[in-house]
Amino acid sequence: MKIEDLIAQIRQKKSFLCVGLDTDLDKIPNHLLKEEDPIFAFNKAIIDATHQYCVAYKPNIAFYEAYGLKGWKSLERTMEYLNENYPEMFTIADAKRGDIGNTSTRYAKAFFETMDFDSITIAPYMGKDSVEPFLEFEDRHTILLALTSNQGAYDFQTKTLDGQELYKEVLSVSKTYKGSERLMYVVGATKASYLEDIRKIVPESFLLVPGVGTQGGSLQDVCKYGITKNVGLLVNSSRGIIYASTGNDFAEVAAKKAYEIQQEMQIELSKIK
Amino acid sequence: MKIEDLIAQIRQKKSFLCVGLDTDLDKIPNHLLKEEDPIFAFNKAIIDATHQYCVAYKPNIAFYEAYGLKGWKSLERTMEYLNENYPEMFTIADAKRGDIGNTSTRYAKAFFETMDFDSITIAPYMGKDSVEPFLEFEDRHTILLALTSNQGAYDFQTKTLDGQELYKEVLSVSKTYKGSERLMYVVGATKASYLEDIRKIVPESFLLVPGVGTQGGSLQDVCKYGITKNVGLLVNSSRGIIYASTGNDFAEVAAKKAYEIQQEMQIELSKIK
Repeated sequence: MKIEDLIAQIRQKKSFLCVGLDTDLDKIPNHLLKEEDPIFAFNKAIIDATHQYCVAYKPNIAFYEAYGLKGWKSLERTMEYLNENYPEMFTIADAKRGDIGNTSTRYAKAFFETMDFDSITIAPYMGKDSVEPFLEFEDRHTILLALTSNQGAYDFQTKTLDGQELYKEVLSVSKTYKGSERLMYVVGATKASYLEDIRKIVPESFLLVPGVGTQGGSLQDVCKYGITKNVGLLVNSSRGIIYASTGNDFAEVAAKKAYEIQQEMQIELSKIK
Repeated sequence: MKIEDLIAQIRQKKSFLCVGLDTDLDKIPNHLLKEEDPIFAFNKAIIDATHQYCVAYKPNIAFYEAYGLKGWKSLERTMEYLNENYPEMFTIADAKRGDIGNTSTRYAKAFFETMDFDSITIAPYMGKDSVEPFLEFEDRHTILLALTSNQGAYDFQTKTLDGQELYKEVLSVSKTYKGSERLMYVVGATKASYLEDIRKIVPESFLLVPGVGTQGGSLQDVCKYGITKNVGLLVNSSRGIIYASTGNDFAEVAAKKAYEIQQEMQIELSKIK
């Protein structure tokens, strides 16, 4: 997907919400367990109910991988369903991969070609030649971990490396990579004020922001420091939407939650000059 | 697998060779493509031919993931074959995963439980709560990326963070993690002298060393700086063994190559006092 198409979709739906598909057999409504593919049945119902309020879906790959072949099949079916029925959706493989050159190329093929995702999350630790193979794919996007929203982010990411924090170094250095115009960044919302510094380094890039609501930061603060003329934000919510109800009304309640966030986002979008 | 069993196997076989299963349909002998599962057929032949000269096998997960469901099936069959026929083998999922707590737990289940690997490689960028979920599994081992052998290692890993290089900080900080006795580390052999510094921080830990031969460092140098009383080394070779011949004699030639490395290793092991 071209970035312009993502921006157009955001403007049309007045939403920059990404729904995280962290689908867990222990948490989905009991009646779905009778289905032939309960994970896909759950995802399908969530997608059908929420698609008008969001612009992106982000399957968390670990949740599928944990079920082995069955899980990969559910993931493939989910992607086929999305690409057939809602081709306008921006799809994110939350995979946090990254390896040396020829191996990264394999991962890129797995997610961009075999499964036709628009984007993938990548860990930056192995540097340039582990990231650039992903950047070669036209109209696909690589979302590099910069500052994550978990406690472990303070182990390395916020420590000072050669004069600036490691996550800032990741932002600065990655801008020099070939194909860097296809980079986005994961930036946790635990301290929205970090976004002010981040915008000094990557003023235009799209940021994927997890952790709004449940893990801290407010949507208003994220927008205050992070929003750009072309929006430049995708804010993710997973459990707060997909598990808002575990009853028969789960899809309906998920839609209601997504709608509430979309309404807040509409207000923030109206502030862009 | 208990670490003592790995050490006993090394002593018995006089080898600390790990064979990397980077199996690629474009590189395996043509006649195997007629098989119902060519990747598994190739792996099985390589394993049967080389098992007496090595102590570990390391499937590079990207190579399987790139083929989608079919690839995962080949990987599962390879692991079943290994665990049934050569249960003494130490198995490494070269997956370079890492995510926040509950997601890392999913990855750990995928590889330690669903596929019964003895160990997995993990990227350290997200810190403590992304690594500790893996360390909870008894008799399973987590191999943390410290210093990799690719060019991109110089982007972040060798830069100075809070007074010492990032890769040393990863070694130091990870030693404080709960379950750290189950940690091993990936250390590239591009500059074997780095191993001298690394051994000051982790004097006993097992190191998984890629890049011997093809990418630089010699086995002698790696041993000079890295070997411990309990060996403490697994040296990986992938392409140099599995693709040494692409003819009908591929398994035979792979065995010959593995034997040659084992012979060198035997000499190094005899030097341990």
